Amino acid sequence: MRPIGVFDSGVGGLTVVAALRRRLPRESIVYLGDTARLPYGTKSAATVARYTASNVEFLLDRDVRAVVVACNTASALALDTLEAPVPLWGVVEPGADLAARTSRGRVGIVATESTIASGAYSRALLARRDDLEIVAQSCPLFVPLVEEGWCDDPITRQIAERYLEPLLAAEIDTLVLGCTHYPLLAPLLQEIVGPEIRLVDSAEAVAEVVARELEPEAASGSPGVAAHRLFVTDGAARFERLADWILGERGTPLELVDVASAERR
Amino acid sequence: MRPIGVFDSGVGGLTVVAALRRRLPRESIVYLGDTARLPYGTKSAATVARYTASNVEFLLDRDVRAVVVACNTASALALDTLEAPVPLWGVVEPGADLAARTSRGRVGIVATESTIASGAYSRALLARRDDLEIVAQSCPLFVPLVEEGWCDDPITRQIAERYLEPLLAAEIDTLVLGCTHYPLLAPLLQEIVGPEIRLVDSAEAVAEVVARELEPEAASGSPGVAAHRLFVTDGAARFERLADWILGERGTPLELVDVASAERR
Repeated sequence: MRPIGVFDSGVGGLTVVAALRRRLPRESIVYLGDTARLPYGTKSAATVARYTASNVEFLLDRDVRAVVVACNTASALALDTLEAPVPLWGVVEPGADLAARTSRGRVGIVATESTIASGAYSRALLARRDDLEIVAQSCPLFVPLVEEGWCDDPITRQIAERYLEPLLAAEIDTLVLGCTHYPLLAPLLQEIVGPEIRLVDSAEAVAEVVARELEPEAASGSPGVAAHRLFVTDGAARFERLADWILGERGTPLELVDVASAERR
Repeated sequence: MRPIGVFDSGVGGLTVVAALRRRLPRESIVYLGDTARLPYGTKSAATVARYTASNVEFLLDRDVRAVVVACNTASALALDTLEAPVPLWGVVEPGADLAARTSRGRVGIVATESTIASGAYSRALLARRDDLEIVAQSCPLFVPLVEEGWCDDPITRQIAERYLEPLLAAEIDTLVLGCTHYPLLAPLLQEIVGPEIRLVDSAEAVAEVVARELEPEAASGSPGVAAHRLFVTDGAARFERLADWILGERGTPLELVDVASAERR
């Protein structure tokens, strides 16, 4: 059975893979982490679009039957520039959709610098509900803090409190986690904002949409066992450590590839 | 007059440019910040070597008469793999040299994950003085903190205190700042370690070596005015903001280039 293709700039998109595996346990998944060129969140739209196109091309070469752009920055900056002969989802629209359906009127967004600067979440939210008040905050330190493994740490708490302060002052009722690394900070963020504010995890939101929309005959699956592959563009050890943690398993084999060459074809 | 070429993965190497300008005010400098592929400090040796080679090639195409690898990670992981028809310096050897000459016996090193993992500083220090005791500490959050502009901040202080704790416990007398971003944290780090511990700034150290070793006829310079150029591989706004701050000037014009294509020739 043809696999679902998923890519992110790094390891964060594995939160989408974990969510997809829970919902579609018999689907095979091919993952590409573009670790040689990460992070995308501080780069320009043109560069992110170029990287995104080569990643999608790499996945299509692996004969995927659907593509999930599991990177908020790439979804925000480059989804409109993509053409693919298979169904293709980004994480911004599903996250915005869930937030717009459940918010009581005031939505906060946390994401990388580039995702916030793109305005993609605000546009997607307002297209669904023009009555929403929106407060957006870039949190450039969250990804390095997660990658350092400081997800439950007093220093991370202080940084999060500083980033979230204007959102709490604006009395948001919903907080969109607009980066696939951020679900790993969800317990800490929920503690800071309190139980009344609903966290919307864009990784969970896109997995829900894929599970619902993926063509039925394949979703029901063959009796075969799902086969997963993890590709990375750089073989740094930190990816393995974080991948095991996110996927809850040990020693996931990584395959090293060069997608930048595809870009030059 | 032919310029000196300097490159770093991003904006940090401009601390080397600033040091070179102070020592060699009449030299023209061509700088390349490989912002499309930064950071190097969490990537593998093979990837860093590939990126480094394409950056040097780009500078040689600009007819530079010397190259400074102003990136500690590239210096640590890739300097041995480079061949260039002009003088070429990395930042590790000058930094290690200065530390070995001045230490009373116990040297601490702070740098990125990849630089520390390479062991390049320890090897360079022990090659000069095999009596040295060395404690190395990777500080993955320092670069994002500097890029966030939190150089003088209580949160940065707590993070630095945590990173430096094992070095202070080992009673170091010298601390090597093994990343070109770190000089921007020097005042804070000096406060934490106290006045008795000497900070060795590898950016200053390499500028001193270049000023001393660069062939004399050019070092004395023509009566012309130095002309500087700044190239980047990605045009994100944060580079400009940080560049102005490090160089102490406003609106340095940036030129956008694509060096990845050079890699494929």
